[in-house]
Amino acid sequence: MNSPVPHLTTALTGPLLALESTLLRRSPDIEAWFREQWLKTTPPLYSSVDLRNAGFKLAPVDTNLFPGGFNNLNPAFEPLCIQALQTAIQRICPTAKRLVLVPENHTRNTFYLENVATLVDLITKAGFHMRIGSLIPDLHEATELPLEHSGRRLRLEPLRRTGNRVHVGDYVPCAVLLNNDLSAGVPEILRDLDQEVIPPLDLGWHARQKSNHFGFYREVAKEMAALLGLDPWLFDPLFRNCGQINFQKREGQECLEANVALLLEDIAAKYKEYGITEQPFVIVKSDAGTYGMGVMTARSVDDIRNMNRRARTHMSSAKEGREVTSAIIQEGVYTFEKLGPDGATAEPVVYMIDQFVVGGFYRLNAQRGNQENLNAPGMRFEPLAFEECCSHPDPRCGPDERPNRFYAYGVVARMAALAAAREIEATRQLAAPRAA
Amino acid sequence: MNSPVPHLTTALTGPLLALESTLLRRSPDIEAWFREQWLKTTPPLYSSVDLRNAGFKLAPVDTNLFPGGFNNLNPAFEPLCIQALQTAIQRICPTAKRLVLVPENHTRNTFYLENVATLVDLITKAGFHMRIGSLIPDLHEATELPLEHSGRRLRLEPLRRTGNRVHVGDYVPCAVLLNNDLSAGVPEILRDLDQEVIPPLDLGWHARQKSNHFGFYREVAKEMAALLGLDPWLFDPLFRNCGQINFQKREGQECLEANVALLLEDIAAKYKEYGITEQPFVIVKSDAGTYGMGVMTARSVDDIRNMNRRARTHMSSAKEGREVTSAIIQEGVYTFEKLGPDGATAEPVVYMIDQFVVGGFYRLNAQRGNQENLNAPGMRFEPLAFEECCSHPDPRCGPDERPNRFYAYGVVARMAALAAAREIEATRQLAAPRAA
Repeated sequence: MNSPVPHLTTALTGPLLALESTLLRRSPDIEAWFREQWLKTTPPLYSSVDLRNAGFKLAPVDTNLFPGGFNNLNPAFEPLCIQALQTAIQRICPTAKRLVLVPENHTRNTFYLENVATLVDLITKAGFHMRIGSLIPDLHEATELPLEHSGRRLRLEPLRRTGNRVHVGDYVPCAVLLNNDLSAGVPEILRDLDQEVIPPLDLGWHARQKSNHFGFYREVAKEMAALLGLDPWLFDPLFRNCGQINFQKREGQECLEANVALLLEDIAAKYKEYGITEQPFVIVKSDAGTYGMGVMTARSVDDIRNMNRRARTHMSSAKEGREVTSAIIQEGVYTFEKLGPDGATAEPVVYMIDQFVVGGFYRLNAQRGNQENLNAPGMRFEPLAFEECCSHPDPRCGPDERPNRFYAYGVVARMAALAAAREIEATRQLAAPRAA
Repeated sequence: MNSPVPHLTTALTGPLLALESTLLRRSPDIEAWFREQWLKTTPPLYSSVDLRNAGFKLAPVDTNLFPGGFNNLNPAFEPLCIQALQTAIQRICPTAKRLVLVPENHTRNTFYLENVATLVDLITKAGFHMRIGSLIPDLHEATELPLEHSGRRLRLEPLRRTGNRVHVGDYVPCAVLLNNDLSAGVPEILRDLDQEVIPPLDLGWHARQKSNHFGFYREVAKEMAALLGLDPWLFDPLFRNCGQINFQKREGQECLEANVALLLEDIAAKYKEYGITEQPFVIVKSDAGTYGMGVMTARSVDDIRNMNRRARTHMSSAKEGREVTSAIIQEGVYTFEKLGPDGATAEPVVYMIDQFVVGGFYRLNAQRGNQENLNAPGMRFEPLAFEECCSHPDPRCGPDERPNRFYAYGVVARMAALAAAREIEATRQLAAPRAA
């Protein structure tokens, strides 16, 4: 329980300390602003946000609407998760008590299965019946999987459909909770249900685009910056995007090169403005991908121009074999956080349920540098790092003291969750049948 | 942090284990029922409930709408309190951010001042501005009190009124949070404000009656018992009440004696039904009192008939000198819980914010027996006892294992909070100006 909380290895000077001080000083305004926003836009049931803390900048780099690491949260946060789930699910099913969870199909990822078991456990403790409706095609009857890490058992049952309702056995839920990012598209069994599906089907990675999310985030960052009298760049990663990229066939190469060049220039200008002497870099990734595949770091246009066959194959190998068809080029944000005896590169991941920060952990990777994607082979988690919850500041501490650093993380993570909420709302409106 | 959780000193057999097993098995139904109730009736902003666990019966004996022991909660529950406060206050002041807390006037009770400081701290961390508006008549300017137990400082400011709004200095709050039970009546400064006062003024002890609360509780207990197919007596303390009692002048003596006799008979009948061999007893207390004054145990009518002068004076000495004018005679519930190296008699106190259980502690008193009021000289608190939150059960444990025992406590405490919610709603409707 006493795992050391990482300190930034660079001296904290300039903008970030100023940013954190401002967030602390203005926390009642920030909280009032968030309250107002959540009245306008319903928060996602759950979300997780990967942050990068560069010392001079603190920004989200990925927002996940199907978080897969609830098993990595500090068990001390369990009551917080349960309370937030009660608030969130109550809004969806005020009087009902039955839910079905639809997880990913990959049953060999034992850590993922622990996440599913933890989610079932939390929602059960929140006072709901919860059964797992699996989409695995060759699962024909209820199957109990022993979980090697925790010693728990996980019961998978095949999801069935009768009319416009899904069920497992004779158990008919009031709503379907997705923990499956639908990378391969929306399965027939989930289309046009009478039951509510959360998050909405159109938020799966088959349809969702990172550039769309970060467009909403840019707006949120502008609003927050206006509220606080700050430059939004301090928490907003610049980005550009290209459609129709095929790395194997070198299609869309000019768009990619041009946008990498422009973005590197924009970052360099910002670095100059703030007197930052680090080298600018960008991250190129699938605009609709996940799982850390198809992600690369580029420090120059040549890095793109001179990609070899292996790098091209890597960039094309998104989850479940989907070809990358569009790409986002995102400002690379250094992480200067290190953790553990091996000084592994670290980035915080913040978990939210409804409008509440419910915990987090550090993603570590000793094999990766501070300009690289850490969601890659060698990745591990430090579940105990966030001993303090990050939703509330302590005015008696300095900005770089533990609860306060985490408060700043919680603010930026919630900005990303708010962007996701607006993204969901916009998607819902697009999907709604039009009045004739 | 590893303080042992007390076990009942009597063997747990019969009804309570059965009751706890039922609560555990039916927890999704119980939670769904509570959700439905909270949609109908807004929960109190905060409340605390004293429980007594007799082994064969688990019941609330007092429900406080101005809880004064937030400093006794396990600090690990802080995030839970903050999250619940955000939910609760958001409902009251969705976009505002300024609150004033009106505490009790007794500045020499240093533990109470710690409670006030903890409340201010929690609400500040929830993202609201919070200042203390004191009613102390001779407080003419802002005063900082050093708190000896925690080393914190508490800033009291005189509450002022301009027109129909109260303020401290030029700070005008959106709502007034009462942590003052108004035993001495409603002060002029708080009457007919444009700002919301929480809880409503009519819930102060100048107007509130325990018998009214336990009347609402009886209804809640009946409904829960019907849901679960149980005898409501297993969690409902029987009671009777008498108006117009003056112990000094022996006024109302016959009413008291008659009702004590009837109640002892009713309890004896229930004990017989369940094969309980303990001696029945009743608690006589002020129907509108608090602070443990004016509370006595009676095992027979003679205990009432033969009260000496000293006992009569004690029964007349309610808080702030008010004379007792009506009394509640409540079924005495044994507590068979003991805690600490001295085996002190113990009873759990459960704290709630909004609809959520946010922690609790044991009230201990080594100088008192298991048939007596523990809120008396010799009282101390064990803040670490509730290491587990009591709002959620663990289906993998037996009914008397820790999280599950606490789940049962949380259910019964929330039943009392629901009774208080209905009491508040009824009071509000009575107070509302009638349409002509």
